[in-house]
Amino acid sequence: MTESASAAAEVQRLLRPDLRGRTAYGAPQLDVPVRLNTNENSYPVPQAVVDAILEALAGDVASLNRYPDRDFADLRAALTAYVVRQSGVPVTPEQVWAGNGSNEVLSHVVQAFGGSGRVALGFTPSYSMHPIISETLGATWVDGLRGAGRPGAFDLTAEAAAEQARRHHPAVVFLCSPNNPTGTALPFEVITAVLEAAPDAIVVVDEAYAEFARAGTRSALTLVADNPRLVVTRTMSKAFAFAGGRLGYLVAAPEVVDALRLVRLPYHLSTPTQTIARVALEHAELMLGTVEVIKAQRDRIVERLATLGAAPVASDSNFVLFGGLADEKATWQALLDRGVLVRDVGIAHHLRVTAGDPEETTAFLEAMVALAPTHLATTHEQETVA
Amino acid sequence: MTESASAAAEVQRLLRPDLRGRTAYGAPQLDVPVRLNTNENSYPVPQAVVDAILEALAGDVASLNRYPDRDFADLRAALTAYVVRQSGVPVTPEQVWAGNGSNEVLSHVVQAFGGSGRVALGFTPSYSMHPIISETLGATWVDGLRGAGRPGAFDLTAEAAAEQARRHHPAVVFLCSPNNPTGTALPFEVITAVLEAAPDAIVVVDEAYAEFARAGTRSALTLVADNPRLVVTRTMSKAFAFAGGRLGYLVAAPEVVDALRLVRLPYHLSTPTQTIARVALEHAELMLGTVEVIKAQRDRIVERLATLGAAPVASDSNFVLFGGLADEKATWQALLDRGVLVRDVGIAHHLRVTAGDPEETTAFLEAMVALAPTHLATTHEQETVA
Repeated sequence: MTESASAAAEVQRLLRPDLRGRTAYGAPQLDVPVRLNTNENSYPVPQAVVDAILEALAGDVASLNRYPDRDFADLRAALTAYVVRQSGVPVTPEQVWAGNGSNEVLSHVVQAFGGSGRVALGFTPSYSMHPIISETLGATWVDGLRGAGRPGAFDLTAEAAAEQARRHHPAVVFLCSPNNPTGTALPFEVITAVLEAAPDAIVVVDEAYAEFARAGTRSALTLVADNPRLVVTRTMSKAFAFAGGRLGYLVAAPEVVDALRLVRLPYHLSTPTQTIARVALEHAELMLGTVEVIKAQRDRIVERLATLGAAPVASDSNFVLFGGLADEKATWQALLDRGVLVRDVGIAHHLRVTAGDPEETTAFLEAMVALAPTHLATTHEQETVA
Repeated sequence: MTESASAAAEVQRLLRPDLRGRTAYGAPQLDVPVRLNTNENSYPVPQAVVDAILEALAGDVASLNRYPDRDFADLRAALTAYVVRQSGVPVTPEQVWAGNGSNEVLSHVVQAFGGSGRVALGFTPSYSMHPIISETLGATWVDGLRGAGRPGAFDLTAEAAAEQARRHHPAVVFLCSPNNPTGTALPFEVITAVLEAAPDAIVVVDEAYAEFARAGTRSALTLVADNPRLVVTRTMSKAFAFAGGRLGYLVAAPEVVDALRLVRLPYHLSTPTQTIARVALEHAELMLGTVEVIKAQRDRIVERLATLGAAPVASDSNFVLFGGLADEKATWQALLDRGVLVRDVGIAHHLRVTAGDPEETTAFLEAMVALAPTHLATTHEQETVA
């Protein structure tokens, strides 16, 4: 046995048994002209905000020898003001918590309320980090069903969600609205039904894409004041065009936020992270200035794919899941060969594409027009494969 | 029951049982003239480094709409170069891993190799986050003994460490060298003895304060190449004067680093974090320019406290633990009343003070001179209380 084979065997022997054989999460980071695979906002941070951020950092960098404000008071105030303005829901700083991306706030929730011997329930397909975070932290993940298990059906009714919540006795339930990777906002009554059906659970509504929702979509934030078991997570990575800054947050009862302090690593948010996010939030209107353009591109993708004969799913987010592909892996590669990177989310016959700027969207749609004759399954083929 | 009392009861009911009744970790963040409680480096980041950081960030901020490099290649290269230069040990980027503070890399190690049903062993008193991280992640913490359990004795022999390692069958062992809060580097043979005595364990040597060690102190880095079960953690928070930037790292076998990728949250290091740390590392000589001054202040504290009749512990770090106090809580408060914040680390009759700049050190020592006549215990009192 070579030395490195021996090290590999040694590490496998010591690894937590349930982690053996796993591969690390992560979409390929490829350098291609049109990157539409991680639901980033394609527009750079506006220059006025860049200038304000650099000016604020100039005062910070010299004092990096000191630990950050552990409770990030200024950032929490800025997040609170933004949430109130965006949602119209009255929220106080004591209800707001943040982490290095919404993954971190989700992991705080699972650590505090889940963990070994407890069940975390989600409704698949949904955000793939929900099961990864839950299982990595020792909880037992249960894959609930959407669309009553019918292939290609991604709806979730209040009745179906409540029945599964009752059946599995979860400690944590993940709902995702708009759902990723399918794109559609949940019927609001799913949330209330699950809260009622799972009386021993923290119910997490992941609203990472909330700012892209179609008009009339009600946020779960409106339920937080009356539900100490409800947690609404959001992120600055998507609409806010701030994926590189890593700032996710949640809104919940102050008592829930206090519980998260028991499991967070102290000083988890660096001083520059706090400053940069705070300044970006103070320029929310500029940062969100591209949301309407992106929504228009999303709607354009849905409409054009439908005319091509693909099967796009209704979207309240900045991406579109589309089906009707004979072989999604072949289409993924064919798009990549044309310089367009989309996401294979592991659903047969489907791919997910981010709504980028108009040029990126055109590049994607032109590639799909070229591929449609050979890559779309006939109805007969789809039925056979399904 | 009021609404908020009801919410508090509801959250306590849902909280993981082992977290109930806990309080969040964290030293008081008080705004006083002389802050010597968290072992920060008192010197600000040199202006030349500030300028270089701001210049590098200017190119980054506009593209914060994109996710960071998930594998932080440039930062790992910079960390590798620094480790090689500082320690003289050949290390490759595949052996280096980083997180938002060394707490995060420690939590990655515990998640991958510890977890529910597994034992984590440390030797108390030591860094208080080791048990907190382990227990929060579901591992069973065992408080090993230093000084054979004699009050005020903080040494750890190879024999005592090995015997405890054999007895408790740990999956993870934490060693800390120099040890925090006691300050002294471990005898090197403790590390090799524990590696041998705990054949099923990952052995973590926390070298957060390594750059302050006295001449001749050998780093555990010299053992990494031959020991796939050895992990050496370090941080930029202390000697590097970079506590606000939140960058901790570790060196281990490439196979161990690969295992950590299974549990890390994707994109855990923001683009600014990567850039700022990388530039700071490229200016390592400037960033570390204050280490010798701080070591001189540390030695001054040890010598002066000894002449006062307090009982300072030998230090290889940027802080000094001192005993001989009649009532450490009273002395902590009396120092605070004089504008000097030190750390009550929970050891009877002892406090811990950071070596700051010469003025801060003078302020602390002058306060201690004033307090000595009434705050130092007589030998008789100490024996009685112990």
